[in-house]
Amino acid sequence: MNGLSPRTIWYMERITPTLVQASGVRQVIYEGDTPYQHAQVIETDPFGKMLVLDDKTQSSEADEWAYHEALVQPVMTAHPNPRRVMVAGGGEGATIREALRHGAVEEVVMVDLDAAVVDLCKAHLPNHHQGAFDDPRVTLLHEDALAYLEKRETPFDVIIIDVPDPLEGGPAYLLYTVEFYELVRARLAPGGLMVAQSGPTGPTNVDEVFTAIARTMAKVFDHASPSQVNVPSFGMMWGFIACGGADAPNVAAMTEADVDARLRERGVSSLRFYDGEAHRGMFGMPKYVREAVAAETRVITRGTPLYAI
Amino acid sequence: MNGLSPRTIWYMERITPTLVQASGVRQVIYEGDTPYQHAQVIETDPFGKMLVLDDKTQSSEADEWAYHEALVQPVMTAHPNPRRVMVAGGGEGATIREALRHGAVEEVVMVDLDAAVVDLCKAHLPNHHQGAFDDPRVTLLHEDALAYLEKRETPFDVIIIDVPDPLEGGPAYLLYTVEFYELVRARLAPGGLMVAQSGPTGPTNVDEVFTAIARTMAKVFDHASPSQVNVPSFGMMWGFIACGGADAPNVAAMTEADVDARLRERGVSSLRFYDGEAHRGMFGMPKYVREAVAAETRVITRGTPLYAI
Amino acid sequence: MNGLSPRTIWYMERITPTLVQASGVRQVIYEGDTPYQHAQVIETDPFGKMLVLDDKTQSSEADEWAYHEALVQPVMTAHPNPRRVMVAGGGEGATIREALRHGAVEEVVMVDLDAAVVDLCKAHLPNHHQGAFDDPRVTLLHEDALAYLEKRETPFDVIIIDVPDPLEGGPAYLLYTVEFYELVRARLAPGGLMVAQSGPTGPTNVDEVFTAIARTMAKVFDHASPSQVNVPSFGMMWGFIACGGADAPNVAAMTEADVDARLRERGVSSLRFYDGEAHRGMFGMPKYVREAVAAETRVITRGTPLYAI
Amino acid sequence: MNGLSPRTIWYMERITPTLVQASGVRQVIYEGDTPYQHAQVIETDPFGKMLVLDDKTQSSEADEWAYHEALVQPVMTAHPNPRRVMVAGGGEGATIREALRHGAVEEVVMVDLDAAVVDLCKAHLPNHHQGAFDDPRVTLLHEDALAYLEKRETPFDVIIIDVPDPLEGGPAYLLYTVEFYELVRARLAPGGLMVAQSGPTGPTNVDEVFTAIARTMAKVFDHASPSQVNVPSFGMMWGFIACGGADAPNVAAMTEADVDARLRERGVSSLRFYDGEAHRGMFGMPKYVREAVAAETRVITRGTPLYAI
Repeated sequence: MNGLSPRTIWYMERITPTLVQASGVRQVIYEGDTPYQHAQVIETDPFGKMLVLDDKTQSSEADEWAYHEALVQPVMTAHPNPRRVMVAGGGEGATIREALRHGAVEEVVMVDLDAAVVDLCKAHLPNHHQGAFDDPRVTLLHEDALAYLEKRETPFDVIIIDVPDPLEGGPAYLLYTVEFYELVRARLAPGGLMVAQSGPTGPTNVDEVFTAIARTMAKVFDHASPSQVNVPSFGMMWGFIACGGADAPNVAAMTEADVDARLRERGVSSLRFYDGEAHRGMFGMPKYVREAVAAETRVITRGTPLYAI
Repeated sequence: MNGLSPRTIWYMERITPTLVQASGVRQVIYEGDTPYQHAQVIETDPFGKMLVLDDKTQSSEADEWAYHEALVQPVMTAHPNPRRVMVAGGGEGATIREALRHGAVEEVVMVDLDAAVVDLCKAHLPNHHQGAFDDPRVTLLHEDALAYLEKRETPFDVIIIDVPDPLEGGPAYLLYTVEFYELVRARLAPGGLMVAQSGPTGPTNVDEVFTAIARTMAKVFDHASPSQVNVPSFGMMWGFIACGGADAPNVAAMTEADVDARLRERGVSSLRFYDGEAHRGMFGMPKYVREAVAAETRVITRGTPLYAI
Repeated sequence: MNGLSPRTIWYMERITPTLVQASGVRQVIYEGDTPYQHAQVIETDPFGKMLVLDDKTQSSEADEWAYHEALVQPVMTAHPNPRRVMVAGGGEGATIREALRHGAVEEVVMVDLDAAVVDLCKAHLPNHHQGAFDDPRVTLLHEDALAYLEKRETPFDVIIIDVPDPLEGGPAYLLYTVEFYELVRARLAPGGLMVAQSGPTGPTNVDEVFTAIARTMAKVFDHASPSQVNVPSFGMMWGFIACGGADAPNVAAMTEADVDARLRERGVSSLRFYDGEAHRGMFGMPKYVREAVAAETRVITRGTPLYAI
Repeated sequence: MNGLSPRTIWYMERITPTLVQASGVRQVIYEGDTPYQHAQVIETDPFGKMLVLDDKTQSSEADEWAYHEALVQPVMTAHPNPRRVMVAGGGEGATIREALRHGAVEEVVMVDLDAAVVDLCKAHLPNHHQGAFDDPRVTLLHEDALAYLEKRETPFDVIIIDVPDPLEGGPAYLLYTVEFYELVRARLAPGGLMVAQSGPTGPTNVDEVFTAIARTMAKVFDHASPSQVNVPSFGMMWGFIACGGADAPNVAAMTEADVDARLRERGVSSLRFYDGEAHRGMFGMPKYVREAVAAETRVITRGTPLYAI
């Protein structure tokens, strides 16, 4: 009836104290507290169904495919034979969905601390997980990723860190430290690769956490290759860093033809964001990002943790 | 006094009817109507000083350098000897600033219809133009870019279209038609290049105008190469399309090394966004963008114009 | 976790195109379309549970008692023996709740067009209706109040018009016309009284609809007494007009002592807003309201209806 | 051009952490810090020019006349011969404007701590002060009202307290204490009256500060009469309390006829809000306000101050 105001209910995400992204809400599917965080599943006009944890958008139907393909596909594609994969976090089930596309995969261990969030995603975000939780190759564990890795014996070929931002008091900040990356490196098989979602890379916020994470990883790994993808529901560019030892493939160095050939060989054909050209785009970082990484001096440790805004 | 609300004055940009980006305002420097559009110069916390025309952000101090380098540098760098350059629009003076970095440039004709907007920018956006209007190579004209091109005799090496989105009733929609691009092509010297800001390229909005512009240009030019850059103050990815005839360099095909070598030769050293690797990133388009362009059937003409939301 | 933003979900009510009241949302209990209007039941931090129809707040737990007592109690109290009462609209059940407090009442006919809204209120707003729908004196009908009144034979002692604002295309605008008030008058028993919610009475909006309704009623009734009450969830003052023939009590003329005596006689003791002093306050209208009513020339008819913003 | 969003610049007043009133902004006339507070003069669509101190609206052109008449006229009218008047605060000049309407006035001492705010109002709010600062009966002092009263020797007939809310760290909180009211009483001439703006009186916020102020005043004065007025730019009802000793007129007890007769005698004819009927309305308080005042136990002292939200 009221053409002027197409919505009365809005989701207001405070990107910074003076930058807010507001989206018209179709429905609030769930809002409540888990043992670890405040969780919401909402459906908005611009982004479809969204998972929001501690007031921060984690992913949306409108662009989760770009985020999750950009996070997962480069390392999975670069690795010549990714049989064992670990996913830390990734509650929506879309991270394991992407890993499972590669036929070599025999085992995916998903370690997400918060069972309640995973249950929410299973129930309400079918377009995210697309049944991936039912794949017999998947083992789903609800424990601390760090504790799990400490006791894990069989090494992984690929480890994907898809945990929430390092919020003060939140469940994830210890997974952004040099100590954690050393543990990850120790649990990688020869030639193994790690990738982590690593925070925003925009001109105004690349130095919030991304540069410090990049520098911290560079202390531990021989290769640490930044990439980025636009995630409209985050209101910004989002960065990933793919890492490996000297014996591992250099993810950033794959050519467009390499990527397309390998995807074709493996029959990975239904991607929406990622292919050889997109790979080139993701790893072609703007000059200011590289300069900011080069100028960064912070190394994140348990004793000197880093918190996102 | 009130830590909860760091600002009481906010700039609310309606990206779509149900997506709003809100920024805390430091000062409203100017707001008024020119003969052609509603103009605002405001200073916000997240983005510094911004030019806003007809309620749409045109550029901000925080990221205009990424936008303007990404718009201008690829074609200027790809052209072996860009002596004569035309800029349509570009009221802030940052587009000509970027063109003027190349020593080969002898003449830059900037044709911006709206003298009032240019005067605002000269007065209030010094960090944008950085004195470019005073360069003796610049001729500033306030007339319709289409009318100017019709009568121009000496051809241009590079033509840069940096006009506002094709809003219905706005001043620019005729500059997004096949007829206009044919006129541009006719005014290019042999080997000449055109580039145009071409609208958003995000997963949710690439098919608003970008794909139609791409298809329209492909009707007129032999090469039409899409690229994109993140512009946080727009709240999204922004696309450009660089075009040329069969005799012109293929901008997208320049390698990282080509770009860096040419910038070095020309002494273009103070860029913040653009270099060889960034070039690779800009022109490595996501799969969904290329698929959307391939699926597009609209060709924009004077008789069937296209309007942005 | 995020002390800066106590809510991410907000209810934004557009009071006017440039005045918005935003309330933090605890839960969206219902949102959907009935055959007649868009309906929402939401719970907000400042106002508790609210009914919203066509994007307009109808009532909230935080202040519905002030609204409904102010609407109903003056006419019920002024009438010496209110046996038969009609309520048009009043879907929340709070209007009949107020009427039922008076022991003389034998019959309350509630005519609310929209069964779906009444069902929502029965299910989700128990603090509003407080069981009033179960009172054996109540007959609930879902039909047009105008059509009902046309065929009703037994006259009413009190008729209470509590329908939504006269929105263009909405279900209620014909219930704000001289023709409707004439029908109401014809269905009142000797000494009968009518009251209608009549729109805002603030300095900036008293002349939107209130003054026109007042003038229209004054064409039909001998007494037409304006009153007002603050309704914070509406973001403004709200007006009522109580009307009667020459044989009816003058509601506005009741003294503080008259009101208190009658409430005491009838054992109406659990009110929160209304008593003799509040009656004095409600009917003591500011000078600007009376001047605006006096200056009003619009008489609302079926042929020249009035629409709220 | 964009009919959907009539404004891009908005003034967002945080009434509470989860209740915000947003108004479209025509111009930000001034924003800056005085030695005492953050000051803004803005012009909004719904309310015209507004003074905002420490992020709280102080008054607006759209309704300041209702606020200032309701604050000043009852005590000025009730006093039989108000020759000497003190105004504490009242930087806009509208409070003294109202006092000066009464011909008996020989001296108005306005004590506003913040010269910068008064200068802003003189320059930018002519519709508020209407030249009152130039009245030869006015003495304008910039010092602490408490310090001024301590040294003042000649008693006042009327003292009007129109200072900002008692914000923690703000300039005014000591002017809401029993000690201050005792000082005021000591500086009143026989039969003298005090009135103070005393905070919101709505159903959701009457017990924030109003009831505590009422109870504190009742400790000091023989009469303490609450009244209220709707102030749309505050988004709520606002309360005043008029006080006097046993020898002073009881402001609340004035009849409608008393008020109208006295205003007529004194030739006070150009009021927009106040007259006899409005007086009746202002002092006819809702039952919940009186019950909340009766239930209040807090007495505000220097040692146990009260801070508004």
